[in-house]
Amino acid sequence: MTEPHWKPIVHRKRLTQLQSIPQPWRLPASTLTSTKTPLETIQTCGILNSEELQWTEIAGITELVRLLTSRSVTSVQLTTAFCKRAAIAQQLTGCLTEIFFDRALQRAKRLDEEFERTGKVAGPLHGIPVSVKDRFDVEGFDTTVGWVGLANKPAAKSDSVVQLLESMGAVLYVKTNVPQSLMMSDSYNHVFGQSVNAFNTALISGGSSGGEGALVGAGGSILGIGTDIGGSIRVPSNLQGLYSICPTTGRVPWNCSFMHQHYLVPPVAGPMARSLPTIEYFMQSLLDSNPWNLDPGCIPIPWRREMAALPTKKLKLGIVYDDGVVRPQPPVMRAMREVAKRLTDAGHEVVEWDTSLHTAGTNLWTKSVLSDGGHHCRQLCAIVDEPLIQGMVVGTAADELSSVEKEKLEEEKYTFQEAYLAQWLSSGIDALVLPVTPWVGYKPKQWVQSSQWLGYTALYNLLNYAAVTVPVAKADEQLDHPVSGIDEEWKTYAPRNEADRFNYGQYVIDLVKEMPVTVQIVGGRFGEEKAVSVAKVVDGLFGR
Amino acid sequence: MTEPHWKPIVHRKRLTQLQSIPQPWRLPASTLTSTKTPLETIQTCGILNSEELQWTEIAGITELVRLLTSRSVTSVQLTTAFCKRAAIAQQLTGCLTEIFFDRALQRAKRLDEEFERTGKVAGPLHGIPVSVKDRFDVEGFDTTVGWVGLANKPAAKSDSVVQLLESMGAVLYVKTNVPQSLMMSDSYNHVFGQSVNAFNTALISGGSSGGEGALVGAGGSILGIGTDIGGSIRVPSNLQGLYSICPTTGRVPWNCSFMHQHYLVPPVAGPMARSLPTIEYFMQSLLDSNPWNLDPGCIPIPWRREMAALPTKKLKLGIVYDDGVVRPQPPVMRAMREVAKRLTDAGHEVVEWDTSLHTAGTNLWTKSVLSDGGHHCRQLCAIVDEPLIQGMVVGTAADELSSVEKEKLEEEKYTFQEAYLAQWLSSGIDALVLPVTPWVGYKPKQWVQSSQWLGYTALYNLLNYAAVTVPVAKADEQLDHPVSGIDEEWKTYAPRNEADRFNYGQYVIDLVKEMPVTVQIVGGRFGEEKAVSVAKVVDGLFGR
Repeated sequence: MTEPHWKPIVHRKRLTQLQSIPQPWRLPASTLTSTKTPLETIQTCGILNSEELQWTEIAGITELVRLLTSRSVTSVQLTTAFCKRAAIAQQLTGCLTEIFFDRALQRAKRLDEEFERTGKVAGPLHGIPVSVKDRFDVEGFDTTVGWVGLANKPAAKSDSVVQLLESMGAVLYVKTNVPQSLMMSDSYNHVFGQSVNAFNTALISGGSSGGEGALVGAGGSILGIGTDIGGSIRVPSNLQGLYSICPTTGRVPWNCSFMHQHYLVPPVAGPMARSLPTIEYFMQSLLDSNPWNLDPGCIPIPWRREMAALPTKKLKLGIVYDDGVVRPQPPVMRAMREVAKRLTDAGHEVVEWDTSLHTAGTNLWTKSVLSDGGHHCRQLCAIVDEPLIQGMVVGTAADELSSVEKEKLEEEKYTFQEAYLAQWLSSGIDALVLPVTPWVGYKPKQWVQSSQWLGYTALYNLLNYAAVTVPVAKADEQLDHPVSGIDEEWKTYAPRNEADRFNYGQYVIDLVKEMPVTVQIVGGRFGEEKAVSVAKVVDGLFGR
Repeated sequence: MTEPHWKPIVHRKRLTQLQSIPQPWRLPASTLTSTKTPLETIQTCGILNSEELQWTEIAGITELVRLLTSRSVTSVQLTTAFCKRAAIAQQLTGCLTEIFFDRALQRAKRLDEEFERTGKVAGPLHGIPVSVKDRFDVEGFDTTVGWVGLANKPAAKSDSVVQLLESMGAVLYVKTNVPQSLMMSDSYNHVFGQSVNAFNTALISGGSSGGEGALVGAGGSILGIGTDIGGSIRVPSNLQGLYSICPTTGRVPWNCSFMHQHYLVPPVAGPMARSLPTIEYFMQSLLDSNPWNLDPGCIPIPWRREMAALPTKKLKLGIVYDDGVVRPQPPVMRAMREVAKRLTDAGHEVVEWDTSLHTAGTNLWTKSVLSDGGHHCRQLCAIVDEPLIQGMVVGTAADELSSVEKEKLEEEKYTFQEAYLAQWLSSGIDALVLPVTPWVGYKPKQWVQSSQWLGYTALYNLLNYAAVTVPVAKADEQLDHPVSGIDEEWKTYAPRNEADRFNYGQYVIDLVKEMPVTVQIVGGRFGEEKAVSVAKVVDGLFGR
């Protein structure tokens, strides 16, 4: 058998990628195969000096802004530090796709010179390296989105979110890895291979913004921009213990949100970071910069500071421990109970949320995202005869809907949105708190076997509700042990269906111990500020 | 030849409609055939007493609110007056479809009793009759939208905008006439026939909210809700000298705006009235009532009062006298020049707008609205073998686009929106002032021959920009005479194309003298408040 003709494209693409990492930043083979975690390797390999380690470990972006504006650090220094750390993270986790350190350092130099000359910063992100998922166009670089057939087709123009980041002063330096099709929670593809977790390379980084999750998790970026259509920002944030916002369409500019093929469920762009203030600073700065003057799809609602402020009154929160379809594994269940307990102890009202609408809503989501019958993916495969990875949420001919069927589905969606909104309003809740995933970690290529239950996240894409993630716990070897742990129900649990059975069967505490658990705070439609406000309360209850 | 089987449905429907008008409110045959204008007949036929005439001639809705809340009039009295006037208008102009006076009077009675009992009003529209286009569902009544095949299928549930009107205290009493397909500027259909102009029954009322235009123009309604996808609110407003808003999607709730079939160019709902304060009062009251809690497509931007206020600084306005495709007839050109002169005299800056993007944008609009290849209309015709009216903006098989072609068109639309936005922002204008139509009046069934140039209005639907109409002039027998008038260029004008030639050839001053001319003020995306603010300036310059 001869090698498929797409393979040489991949070899060249990966070689180019490797060559874009300067020789001194490459790790020796012994390090690559060591048992250290990526974080341990970053800290001990000697590529970053102690200042660079310190800068890249700062979680709050305003601290970097302060360092830059007080001239304690230059953008070139900061960019160098993040390029180094991203280069190492890439070698250990496969988190990157396009790497453009030279372009970044040139831009950082220009920004430094301009600042030196004028004393004025270029914007609220002046000189700060920011990473973006390989879903956004950056002028002059590929946007493969994990398809071999899209390699070597550099973008003619940067996407609006990229243009805005640069107009805000940011320095772009890398794009991050994704799954083929974007429709899975495990980021691997034929072009760049597997992206694994920043904290445990035996586990996945999630998807589809998995590379972004691993990069930010490893400290290779202080702020990354992902996209979400069913959980793609939130799942990697969950697996790497990150804060993030999956917003309502039109809040964060991204022309793709308004494209015809995505009408039934629009994908959205949003920030991922290691601190809540970083997320809020980004949203506030972005919306202060009138993005609707650049992107005709962006909605002119400024960041409503008073709505995002720490609430002064007691909250009423809905909580979901288990959506009735797939029961969360013990670390997730324990995290949810802990969140509920701390909220209640602090005087907030926590009520269990009726999930009886969730299955119908999730089914509408699935029907919607499969409605092109896989046509788009088949076209992308066909460019170079690349095989389609099996088990992704991609339709087959049987799922294809006609225009009339899509109109009917649109009406069903609207009716569902009305019903969920009515439940929400009559409940009087400020926000809804629920798991991001019912699982804590998978080995690579396991997710495609999982029967794909995305009900905890995808439902809110169908509803177009804003959600924020907040890390609250870590899987505990003792407490979350399936036999000797504290989750009594788990020990005798009888799974309800195939997805639930898989989720139950795959739970191995030795594999996932110490992995983060993150909750999702849903603030409703255009509820970004509300969700951030509630996230501040939760964050505070966990001592942050 | 036997009668087509849809004809008996029409006969029954029209009979039911006539029977819904109480005998004492029916006009004698002699009146129906008299040469009086509808307004003269209304004032002299004796069906409305002098108080009823007075109430129905009030243009400002807050005056009716004041009368109701001060107990100077009851809702039953007011509703009776508007029902009478609407009944007469219907007999003279064919402006109505569904008539439900009984339902209205019962509701008015309940509102009066409740007010008497509690001293509290039901909402900002307490007890005020409001009319809606036959495009909205009102529970228990047909929404034929001008299709015979949709007759006798009463709606199970009212549309969100209707629910909101009622929750604001309004009394619904009639639905108003439209063209078959909604895709023409002349409102006639096989179910209810022709709707003619409130000021001259030899001329059309416009479309597709033509019945609404005629009803509000005749004083049969103080506030009507129309819809617009290419000019359908603005054209009838123009022809009847009304104020109106064609908003950006999501501002005025209407689930239809978010339906799949309308993705490329979404239709929007908006108010039509005889005074600008009525329009603003409606928008403000509507958005104060949190419509986003009822309609999941509505965007939570409140009415921004400070943005809508009379401006304190001098304005910079773009103006279009002639878009370079179809030259406006003399009364329109004179009106535009008069507006520019008064604005300039008042110290505002008026700059001529470069329309070089307009044709490309209008072509994208046309391609979009034809993209279903007429499929939907053919289906509606097929229900009862009703013939399709020829000459409407309805696609044929040749216009049908595949999913992939629609995606491409969506991208073209987005790129166009970016380019127009860039022109807008770099110009620094507050708003754009332009004609609504290049013509003043047509006889019934002429519009379908007109080559359908909708560039003055449809472009802003493609852009999803908000526009307000303001009446500014009337066609003048002397000044606008094609031979002896003041438009020197018109006298020797050589038309540029088929549509221009038609528009030029159809101009007959005897036919259109005294007809209103209305300008369009475009405020940009989500520019409702901005457009209202500028409209206040224009209104003031015309002594209102």
